[in-house]
Amino acid sequence: MSLVEAFRGVRNHSLYLCKNLITEDYSLQASEEVSPPKWHLAHTTWFFEQFILVPNDPDYVVKHPQFNFLFNSYYNSLGTRTARNQRGLMSRPSVAEVKAYRAYVDEAMANLIQKNNPTIDELVILGMNHEQQHQELLISDLKYSLWHNPLNPEVMDISEYTPESESKWISIESGVYEIGYQGDSFCYDNELNPHKVYISDFAISSALVTNQDFLEFMEAGGYDDPNYWHDEGWAWTKELEVKAPLYWEKKDGDWCYYTLDGLKPIDKKAAVSHVNFYEASAFASWKGMRLPTEFEWEVAQDQFDWGKRWEWTNSAYLAYPGFTVAPGAIGEYNGKFMINQMVLRGASVATSEGHSRPTYRNFFHPKYRWQFMGIRLAKSL
Amino acid sequence: MSLVEAFRGVRNHSLYLCKNLITEDYSLQASEEVSPPKWHLAHTTWFFEQFILVPNDPDYVVKHPQFNFLFNSYYNSLGTRTARNQRGLMSRPSVAEVKAYRAYVDEAMANLIQKNNPTIDELVILGMNHEQQHQELLISDLKYSLWHNPLNPEVMDISEYTPESESKWISIESGVYEIGYQGDSFCYDNELNPHKVYISDFAISSALVTNQDFLEFMEAGGYDDPNYWHDEGWAWTKELEVKAPLYWEKKDGDWCYYTLDGLKPIDKKAAVSHVNFYEASAFASWKGMRLPTEFEWEVAQDQFDWGKRWEWTNSAYLAYPGFTVAPGAIGEYNGKFMINQMVLRGASVATSEGHSRPTYRNFFHPKYRWQFMGIRLAKSL
Amino acid sequence: MSLVEAFRGVRNHSLYLCKNLITEDYSLQASEEVSPPKWHLAHTTWFFEQFILVPNDPDYVVKHPQFNFLFNSYYNSLGTRTARNQRGLMSRPSVAEVKAYRAYVDEAMANLIQKNNPTIDELVILGMNHEQQHQELLISDLKYSLWHNPLNPEVMDISEYTPESESKWISIESGVYEIGYQGDSFCYDNELNPHKVYISDFAISSALVTNQDFLEFMEAGGYDDPNYWHDEGWAWTKELEVKAPLYWEKKDGDWCYYTLDGLKPIDKKAAVSHVNFYEASAFASWKGMRLPTEFEWEVAQDQFDWGKRWEWTNSAYLAYPGFTVAPGAIGEYNGKFMINQMVLRGASVATSEGHSRPTYRNFFHPKYRWQFMGIRLAKSL
Amino acid sequence: MSLVEAFRGVRNHSLYLCKNLITEDYSLQASEEVSPPKWHLAHTTWFFEQFILVPNDPDYVVKHPQFNFLFNSYYNSLGTRTARNQRGLMSRPSVAEVKAYRAYVDEAMANLIQKNNPTIDELVILGMNHEQQHQELLISDLKYSLWHNPLNPEVMDISEYTPESESKWISIESGVYEIGYQGDSFCYDNELNPHKVYISDFAISSALVTNQDFLEFMEAGGYDDPNYWHDEGWAWTKELEVKAPLYWEKKDGDWCYYTLDGLKPIDKKAAVSHVNFYEASAFASWKGMRLPTEFEWEVAQDQFDWGKRWEWTNSAYLAYPGFTVAPGAIGEYNGKFMINQMVLRGASVATSEGHSRPTYRNFFHPKYRWQFMGIRLAKSL
Repeated sequence: MSLVEAFRGVRNHSLYLCKNLITEDYSLQASEEVSPPKWHLAHTTWFFEQFILVPNDPDYVVKHPQFNFLFNSYYNSLGTRTARNQRGLMSRPSVAEVKAYRAYVDEAMANLIQKNNPTIDELVILGMNHEQQHQELLISDLKYSLWHNPLNPEVMDISEYTPESESKWISIESGVYEIGYQGDSFCYDNELNPHKVYISDFAISSALVTNQDFLEFMEAGGYDDPNYWHDEGWAWTKELEVKAPLYWEKKDGDWCYYTLDGLKPIDKKAAVSHVNFYEASAFASWKGMRLPTEFEWEVAQDQFDWGKRWEWTNSAYLAYPGFTVAPGAIGEYNGKFMINQMVLRGASVATSEGHSRPTYRNFFHPKYRWQFMGIRLAKSL
Repeated sequence: MSLVEAFRGVRNHSLYLCKNLITEDYSLQASEEVSPPKWHLAHTTWFFEQFILVPNDPDYVVKHPQFNFLFNSYYNSLGTRTARNQRGLMSRPSVAEVKAYRAYVDEAMANLIQKNNPTIDELVILGMNHEQQHQELLISDLKYSLWHNPLNPEVMDISEYTPESESKWISIESGVYEIGYQGDSFCYDNELNPHKVYISDFAISSALVTNQDFLEFMEAGGYDDPNYWHDEGWAWTKELEVKAPLYWEKKDGDWCYYTLDGLKPIDKKAAVSHVNFYEASAFASWKGMRLPTEFEWEVAQDQFDWGKRWEWTNSAYLAYPGFTVAPGAIGEYNGKFMINQMVLRGASVATSEGHSRPTYRNFFHPKYRWQFMGIRLAKSL
Repeated sequence: MSLVEAFRGVRNHSLYLCKNLITEDYSLQASEEVSPPKWHLAHTTWFFEQFILVPNDPDYVVKHPQFNFLFNSYYNSLGTRTARNQRGLMSRPSVAEVKAYRAYVDEAMANLIQKNNPTIDELVILGMNHEQQHQELLISDLKYSLWHNPLNPEVMDISEYTPESESKWISIESGVYEIGYQGDSFCYDNELNPHKVYISDFAISSALVTNQDFLEFMEAGGYDDPNYWHDEGWAWTKELEVKAPLYWEKKDGDWCYYTLDGLKPIDKKAAVSHVNFYEASAFASWKGMRLPTEFEWEVAQDQFDWGKRWEWTNSAYLAYPGFTVAPGAIGEYNGKFMINQMVLRGASVATSEGHSRPTYRNFFHPKYRWQFMGIRLAKSL
Repeated sequence: MSLVEAFRGVRNHSLYLCKNLITEDYSLQASEEVSPPKWHLAHTTWFFEQFILVPNDPDYVVKHPQFNFLFNSYYNSLGTRTARNQRGLMSRPSVAEVKAYRAYVDEAMANLIQKNNPTIDELVILGMNHEQQHQELLISDLKYSLWHNPLNPEVMDISEYTPESESKWISIESGVYEIGYQGDSFCYDNELNPHKVYISDFAISSALVTNQDFLEFMEAGGYDDPNYWHDEGWAWTKELEVKAPLYWEKKDGDWCYYTLDGLKPIDKKAAVSHVNFYEASAFASWKGMRLPTEFEWEVAQDQFDWGKRWEWTNSAYLAYPGFTVAPGAIGEYNGKFMINQMVLRGASVATSEGHSRPTYRNFFHPKYRWQFMGIRLAKSL
């Protein structure tokens, strides 16, 4: 597949994800952390316009002088940002105008790519990966926003994932292992600098924790016993009166959860999802076990099935030895988030095809639950 | 005009106000205090369905079982309310569905009204007045929400109001005056119970304060001198760094303001608008004068021109002697707001035709500015 | 009694109120609204130093150059204020130093007063009244702060007040009445400008509402029925989960309350205290009655017993006709609070002797309860 | 030195630290994070009473039944806690009573220790280390609280620390190193489980960053360039308008800082203190370097001078392999804080003698500055 075909494939997938939305859905933003579908569609387009077309195509005319202002996100190096929590207020430009913006930029990008200027290929691939990240956010953000609607809208069928078999313990011997990306395809800067890590003897489970497992924790009073929780996690449960994973609600005495396909009874065999680090860690503590480190996960990952839940690790998101921040706006991509975030490994049912890999480092603040986040257990030997 | 014609007139006017909106505009809610146009269209419809059709038409089938839940507003007597600050998140039902809901209820209402059941006429008229109140809110809420868009959308032409002539002082002699509604048409319960009030000698200005007047206050440092302000108002200016009325912004050194017809240079001869009670009172204090009481206003109103700005009075919104709260949900209409609100008299460029009268008592917390609120001066003699 | 004797009497009373305090108690500040005893002792002294000694006694040397900064309160006209919520953090100057400051200023003041300079007498009397106001605040603030201590400290014996007899209805005929202070002793500027007010027929109860009365309201579910409450009051009860007056707590199934003499069982015959306007108004509404206006109270007050509870009225704290703000810092005394406050009439068990009178206008935001505030009922006839 | 002598030495040191305090100082609590001196004196005593005397001495009578409630801190396993932010409100028990409580418990403890019951020795040593931790907090908390007083109180002479010589780079070769406590004296559970860690080639500076170094960062606009900062750190500087380390203020154009010995001009040669992780990391980034990991620090520490500043590392505070939480209240000591905290290594001018060691792991949330925290640079080779 040529680069231009791959580019068009990624771009079309964003629109495909929205195929069941009504115009009103495109503006939903239920909290500061989530963005409206329209904003995701526009922001990913702005990335190509601003970082590739404007610097590299002298004939390119920007679609609208204020779009740079409206669709910029977190890049402090470029101009003022619109307040992040007000993206849902941008009724104009309309959905139709944003789609026209996409088509306009896609056309210019396709032309530019076909000029075979090798200096931009790397940026095009970065832009495609950036858009794939936003595709996953579009799904998880939309789920969070639609969940606020008592009508339980149905817009997407992401089928649940059920681990194929009973979990077994996979044992790994202590020793020095090589960590980090060593291939020659695309990866993010935070995976680079392959380096040695000493790992002590440990075992890791072959399958993810299920809804049935997590219900047992709930029924055993797991949310009410501070001994299983981090101090900060315990305060979080108390303040928000948390008693179950996100999207779970009792209906006529039975647990249900909101999915993008409507409200459903809990599938007990499915892998638990939408738990945060505090919950994942408390569950592990209740089982007398722990979460794996990201290094343990990477070393053992080829012996187990993964890819349906982002898996919380007990590793803080920090720089690999020798990591340096690239100069300019592109350099803001990853390094500046390296504090108070925990690493998640794997991929989820919402991750775009081909976007993840064994060395991929996803990361979120330990309190967040709105991604498709799950639990895999480990123990020291 | 028959009641059914009047009913249809009011109902159609709500849709007419939205004629330039795009679908995306109908969901805008920029703060907890304002509601989206779609919600206003639905809530006013719900009022007719819930208070008139359901109790009085045995054949009526509610349009959707959850609309009672979704479009209820502040009536504590009726079921749970959807969180007021999340009205903008209700992407479903769609705009088209809400318009269908309106048509459905209008048809049932027209049939019911034509059955000439006199016991419901009073409620129909209350519902029409309720809808007119929401028509004004629809305009002012929409202005507030669209103002957050850097593209300065243009959706409505409400021309500015310029007082016709120089202001003169109108003197009124002290004595006992009769206050409150004494006619036999519709009025709200808060205007009832006509009663005597003793008023001391005073004078009131024939014209509203203009933008030019208010600019002079600003240029004289009015926003920076605590002596003109209530303690609470001063804290408000400091906390929000207020330096001008709402919607004013400096552009290339000149004051402009956002109107529903886009961003415009200030019209200095127009009556100032979008000031709160603190600002109105500080301006009066700077002039060595004061705001009129609502009784002074009512006694003098036939000697001056009014109707383009809601005029802040120095009267707290309290019950007239003998005021009692009607039982049930309708009784929640007015009485429960009788604390920490100041009375505004008059009407504004956004008020629906025929909705106001000399005894009409509008009221808002002193901090609010998003209505078309202006200033008329008074002084004791 | 000479002015200097009266001055010394007021000054000594402040210290007398603190006679059972330990050094640690003098710094307590449990919320932004209350001030520590040490601050009250210093601030009232600062008032005499700054407004009388500095401008009028050329030989006077200020006690400490930073005390003006430390003990200034709300006067925006004079320098920067220390943050109001950090008064409890001023461990230095010590209690002993503040008492020395008092003695130093008292000596200078006594000398100045005895020079018989009539121009300062009025200010001395204002300063004495100012100190008396702070004496009451010292008591109510201290009660609020000590209440946070699980040891229930006992520091003062303010005996409860029990209305002497059954309440009767006192009827007043409609007519024009004269309102406001007409004597030639001291009064505040907000009582001045005697003026006519028309009052409609009403009746007012001769005795205050008792704890027994209020318990009946509580037991009848008064705190759980929104129909009795202002919208704002209802939100207040829900947010803070209010179920009883301030200082009430259930102990082994029985209601007790914290008093400055320790935790005691409720005295059912005593007048209810520490209720806010919302509670007072909800209670009246539950009884099918209402609160009196401040004018009704003033007209009828000589026919009933009062002086043990500040009595909530249904009048907003607004200017009397012709009220003007005095220039300079003294002018900040009252006028700037004339918004979002309700008037209380009477006096309380904590009011210094001779401080109140029939025209006295006390005022607080409707949400506050920490003063000794009670309820008297009225009804329109 | 016998255990009872060591016990008495630690206990007396707490009182020695307070020798210049006045009674009023003992109650100061300027924020939720800091505790009053009186609380530290009482809480450390409570620890001995509750964990040693009550379970081990059948004749022991608790000093006061409510002290367990009042002086408990973070131990969720034991009863209700008094709100952490209200410790400053506990005027009773008095300072004198708390000192009597200390003497009473000390006497009982001395008797118990001298009975030579070996099972309690370990708990006594834990209690002594616990008290030493609180001695450092007593100093840093007191500094923070007194800083709010415009009189700049002088209570303690902790002389500044000036690195002895120019900083040099110490290079360490890559390899597997042993990390964690391996001795047989006291250490905390978080230092246990010595284990192997692979470390890549790096260099670390022999001396701490000085005030002069940090001033250069400030003058180069370090606080205004987002490229040096973590996203979260940048937001922190913007929200609080941070422009310098804690306690620094400009006076007549020159930088001064508040010390426990009063306000002083900045000593440029002294090691910078009171910076948080964000500032330490931004400084390192501006220098083109980075902070060391806690493992790098531990491996290299015997080649440099340390002990005057807690040194921020780029390691998150996480469990060592095989770490397990002890059952019961003692188990809450460390494990539950292992999220969103960064490790600091070393010791400070406020650390009690003998309390730290090369494997000691201190930890704080990256935003905090009120400890004596400094910066040491490192770089990958």
